Amino acid sequence: MRSGIKVFAPASVANVAVGFDALGFAIEKPGDEIIARFSDKPGLRITKITGAKGKLPYEVEQNTAGLAALRLLQHLGEEGRGIEMELHKKLPIGSGLGSSAASAVAGAFAINELLKRPLEKRELLPFALQGEELASGSIHADNVAPSLLGGMILTRQNEPLDVQRVPVPYGLYAAVIHPEVQILTKDARNILSDQVSLKQAIQQTANMGAFVIGMFKLDIELIGRSLQDVMIEPQRAKLIPLFYEVKEAAMKAGALGCSISGAGPSIFTLNANSLIAENVGEAMRKVYFDAKIESQLYVSPINNEGAILY
Amino acid sequence: MRSGIKVFAPASVANVAVGFDALGFAIEKPGDEIIARFSDKPGLRITKITGAKGKLPYEVEQNTAGLAALRLLQHLGEEGRGIEMELHKKLPIGSGLGSSAASAVAGAFAINELLKRPLEKRELLPFALQGEELASGSIHADNVAPSLLGGMILTRQNEPLDVQRVPVPYGLYAAVIHPEVQILTKDARNILSDQVSLKQAIQQTANMGAFVIGMFKLDIELIGRSLQDVMIEPQRAKLIPLFYEVKEAAMKAGALGCSISGAGPSIFTLNANSLIAENVGEAMRKVYFDAKIESQLYVSPINNEGAILY
Repeated sequence: MRSGIKVFAPASVANVAVGFDALGFAIEKPGDEIIARFSDKPGLRITKITGAKGKLPYEVEQNTAGLAALRLLQHLGEEGRGIEMELHKKLPIGSGLGSSAASAVAGAFAINELLKRPLEKRELLPFALQGEELASGSIHADNVAPSLLGGMILTRQNEPLDVQRVPVPYGLYAAVIHPEVQILTKDARNILSDQVSLKQAIQQTANMGAFVIGMFKLDIELIGRSLQDVMIEPQRAKLIPLFYEVKEAAMKAGALGCSISGAGPSIFTLNANSLIAENVGEAMRKVYFDAKIESQLYVSPINNEGAILY
Repeated sequence: MRSGIKVFAPASVANVAVGFDALGFAIEKPGDEIIARFSDKPGLRITKITGAKGKLPYEVEQNTAGLAALRLLQHLGEEGRGIEMELHKKLPIGSGLGSSAASAVAGAFAINELLKRPLEKRELLPFALQGEELASGSIHADNVAPSLLGGMILTRQNEPLDVQRVPVPYGLYAAVIHPEVQILTKDARNILSDQVSLKQAIQQTANMGAFVIGMFKLDIELIGRSLQDVMIEPQRAKLIPLFYEVKEAAMKAGALGCSISGAGPSIFTLNANSLIAENVGEAMRKVYFDAKIESQLYVSPINNEGAILY
């Protein structure tokens, strides 16, 4: 068997309280891995999938990573090339951590690396987006862009795509807890009213502006004051067991802010430093532990790398 | 008669397309002037008002500038001090240019100058806000803060007050046209639905974030792409004669963005430089001229001073 390359695409937190469907940041772990290598048999094939409890399809066009990879190969006129991919799915599906985005990013990124980088990293976005669309039903860069590019990214507009980097103050740390209950993005979306009050929209907009100012000015307290979701969180909190208890524990332990990660059920916090993030993470974990709900805790700086070659 | 001091507080553009009830910037002209001097007769009196077609009251507590001045004097324990104020109202009322805010700012600022600056400029905000509340019926810093402090200011929250400066790229120029039709803020507010669509709120929030990024990064094109009001402008445009014709003329002439100033009827544009702003201003003026609607045009850099002592 020929030697291949191995890539990693990280989990990401979308929405980030102030930027529903727009803002997202990457964390260091967990993430999806793909191994890709050339093969004598023409065409792209998925030869191995681990994780995801055997739920993911091997058909390239039905698989998020496979489709992203295929679309990139087609763009490059290399779809006849014999390539094998192994997908090691380490991100839980339906966790609110950008699982499908990470797979799609890993798929496109792996192909680009295997082919010796015909495209710039940023140019891979459209292909990863097409892969992710398979899972979410629409083009949404809020998880895909940070998983690929790292850091915190604001998607101003999906079509045509307009993504902008938000600078991240040094030391800003995330603590993210994933309780083991599954929420389908579809259900989390269906629960949302298609109207919001003008008052909420005003507050949300002002908080977004202030949050970005805080990120640029390294004003940790402003980041904390701004990091509020008055629009979506009140509607979705009920889908997540003990959401308000976890949030209260996190805020008491010193989090700058705490809200739902993506469509949930994961809950994220941003914190002024790693020590606080550790304490906040433990406080959140204890709430689920005491309630006998299984959970995974991820404490991580903002991941400024995004997808990487191992 | 004793010699006094003379102050100026500028007009301001609130909402700025992306920040309804939150964002505002000051322009250089027009603005309100106040002359203040000590008097042997105890207490604060308004002795002269010019402009505003004789509509403004001389009773201190009924006058926006008077009340702001009085509240500051009370705070300082100086309400017995004999002080005369002349108000030269040069800003049209109901124009959408922060007329009442400028008066309130001038009132508080004049007293602070006359008393040799017992407070920092920023500390005058609460008093100016109380004056402006008389006109608008609620505490709103979106015009008051830029008129006092200059530049572009985001009001994250009115109570407790949280205002943040947004940096302004050098050369950014406003062209603002005021058609001579009166819109009462109250009517402009009543026309608004108290609900907005989630989709609009998402776009508005993303545009606010991107606009702030553009201002920090000096990314003129991003500022232009972001400067869109999908939430309020479609509802209020019908109150303003020829709004869409003016906007089209402005955009064709090269404006970065064009929307309603405050509650209207004034229409503002932001522009990459003064030459473009002049052209844009003339294009807007021509629409009203051709339609035989009287208008005033103001072409100005963002005013970074705010209220000043003449």
